[in-house]
Amino acid sequence: MLELRRHKAAFCKDHLLEHLQNQVRKTIKEFKMLQSGERVLIAVSGGKDSLALWDILLDLGFLAEGLYIDLGIFNYSQTSREKCENFARYKGAKLYVASLPEMYDIGLETIGRGVSRPFCSVCGIIKRYTMNLGAMKKDFPVLATGHNMDDEVSALLGNLLQWKPGYLYRQAPHLPPRQGLVRKIKPLCRLTERETAAYCFIKGIDYILEECPKARGATSITYKEVLNRLEKESPGIKDQFYLGFVRKGRYYFKEEEEIKLNKCSFCGQPTGAPENCSFCGLMDKAGLDPLKITEAFDGKKRG
Amino acid sequence: MLELRRHKAAFCKDHLLEHLQNQVRKTIKEFKMLQSGERVLIAVSGGKDSLALWDILLDLGFLAEGLYIDLGIFNYSQTSREKCENFARYKGAKLYVASLPEMYDIGLETIGRGVSRPFCSVCGIIKRYTMNLGAMKKDFPVLATGHNMDDEVSALLGNLLQWKPGYLYRQAPHLPPRQGLVRKIKPLCRLTERETAAYCFIKGIDYILEECPKARGATSITYKEVLNRLEKESPGIKDQFYLGFVRKGRYYFKEEEEIKLNKCSFCGQPTGAPENCSFCGLMDKAGLDPLKITEAFDGKKRG
Repeated sequence: MLELRRHKAAFCKDHLLEHLQNQVRKTIKEFKMLQSGERVLIAVSGGKDSLALWDILLDLGFLAEGLYIDLGIFNYSQTSREKCENFARYKGAKLYVASLPEMYDIGLETIGRGVSRPFCSVCGIIKRYTMNLGAMKKDFPVLATGHNMDDEVSALLGNLLQWKPGYLYRQAPHLPPRQGLVRKIKPLCRLTERETAAYCFIKGIDYILEECPKARGATSITYKEVLNRLEKESPGIKDQFYLGFVRKGRYYFKEEEEIKLNKCSFCGQPTGAPENCSFCGLMDKAGLDPLKITEAFDGKKRG
Repeated sequence: MLELRRHKAAFCKDHLLEHLQNQVRKTIKEFKMLQSGERVLIAVSGGKDSLALWDILLDLGFLAEGLYIDLGIFNYSQTSREKCENFARYKGAKLYVASLPEMYDIGLETIGRGVSRPFCSVCGIIKRYTMNLGAMKKDFPVLATGHNMDDEVSALLGNLLQWKPGYLYRQAPHLPPRQGLVRKIKPLCRLTERETAAYCFIKGIDYILEECPKARGATSITYKEVLNRLEKESPGIKDQFYLGFVRKGRYYFKEEEEIKLNKCSFCGQPTGAPENCSFCGLMDKAGLDPLKITEAFDGKKRG
């Protein structure tokens, strides 16, 4: 039995699975995330959230394929990639892999050091770019990520503590497509970390337990601890905080005019910058060919 | 020496006093709280914040008088009232006292039980009403309260966790007067609890150390702990959160049209309710004469 205090309920294994899948189904419906049976690309990391998401979307009848971005973080990347490959094989689902070490003979650590930027920032640039590129190249109408409610409330708290109005408005469970950016959805945004872990445990999904070694000491971890402390004191507060935000709070931060995106003069992908996108800028600075990454999605090798 | 990590500085006694007074002076200036030498009524509780505020405003040359509201919470009210009276006597400043036990032969506890409402809610209604009434009756252009930065960030966090847009907009360091509500200011909103305590200690101001016995277990205390945890991790985050809010965040919640206040059909004071104000409703339900409280400010006894 698993007790979920915020729902004032306890569930046995089978009913918990049913409850969690229903939560995801309701979330997809409320935020109009997916059409029945739609094709969707899921960004998978090998962790509990993205594999649970893939499993749930397949069970709900969506044509869900995976994208794993291998950043070459030693054993961590190797293990997490294997978890994704094993899951895909077991479910008979397609997995795309975009691998820095295979394409560039180099990993995140070397790139980060080369450009003197924090790893988490470099990782974010590469992942956001590759996810959008993959969805575009493979004609997916929508990209799904495994962000759970704890990820979302912790990001929300951070954006409020630092008052980032633009980030606040765009922190949505469903971002419509715009100017070359594919539609993005977060179907697990109503499930907690504990719930996605329980889901994988019951379903026997084998995922990587470790957090990314580069994320140790991240402020998001403190935010999560602090929010769990508040949740313990007032069960349901995380739900209330998150739903209040996505249902009404967020709209207070709507920009009068949508920021116009430009086309990167190098790769043609959308960017808020005037000339080159941050990915091309980063790769160029690291002495790498930004266009080579497209190989991951068109099957031929460049130069 | 006291180290203030958020300012990356340590101060000796004299410089700390100077620093804290300067912070208050700058806050008054930034938010246009007071004109030079203006008359101001300070709501004093006998605690460190309101007495420090009174002391600072007197030192800065304002005609600051005090208002103590005695809610008849046994020893707690008796001790806190004495602290206010002693301070006023020592500084030769005027103190008004509005006392529930003297006017009604009854305290907060009996009223709260009689109307089946939480004590903190009843206390809030009585205090807000009496403060405005006192300022109006005694012709003060402005009412100051001793809310410190910890009070403000904890209220802010609560209003965000529960997404209360109206409360968010009105949580300002300076609220202009409107429709019968006196102008309200919070000159200590940039000082932490630790700083106002240090101020009183150095200045030899004797204040009541205990928190109100009715406030034990209040969520605001959890919020403060959680925010101090965040501050420890990232010194300056409370400042950033609060300033970001009052300087820009708050304006996102501005109402299109100001809510029209009515005149209470019983006492004539402003109210958001259609007929009676919450104070008159409360006192009436408790079988007490709402108008009797005006005696505190006109020196004559009713019936």
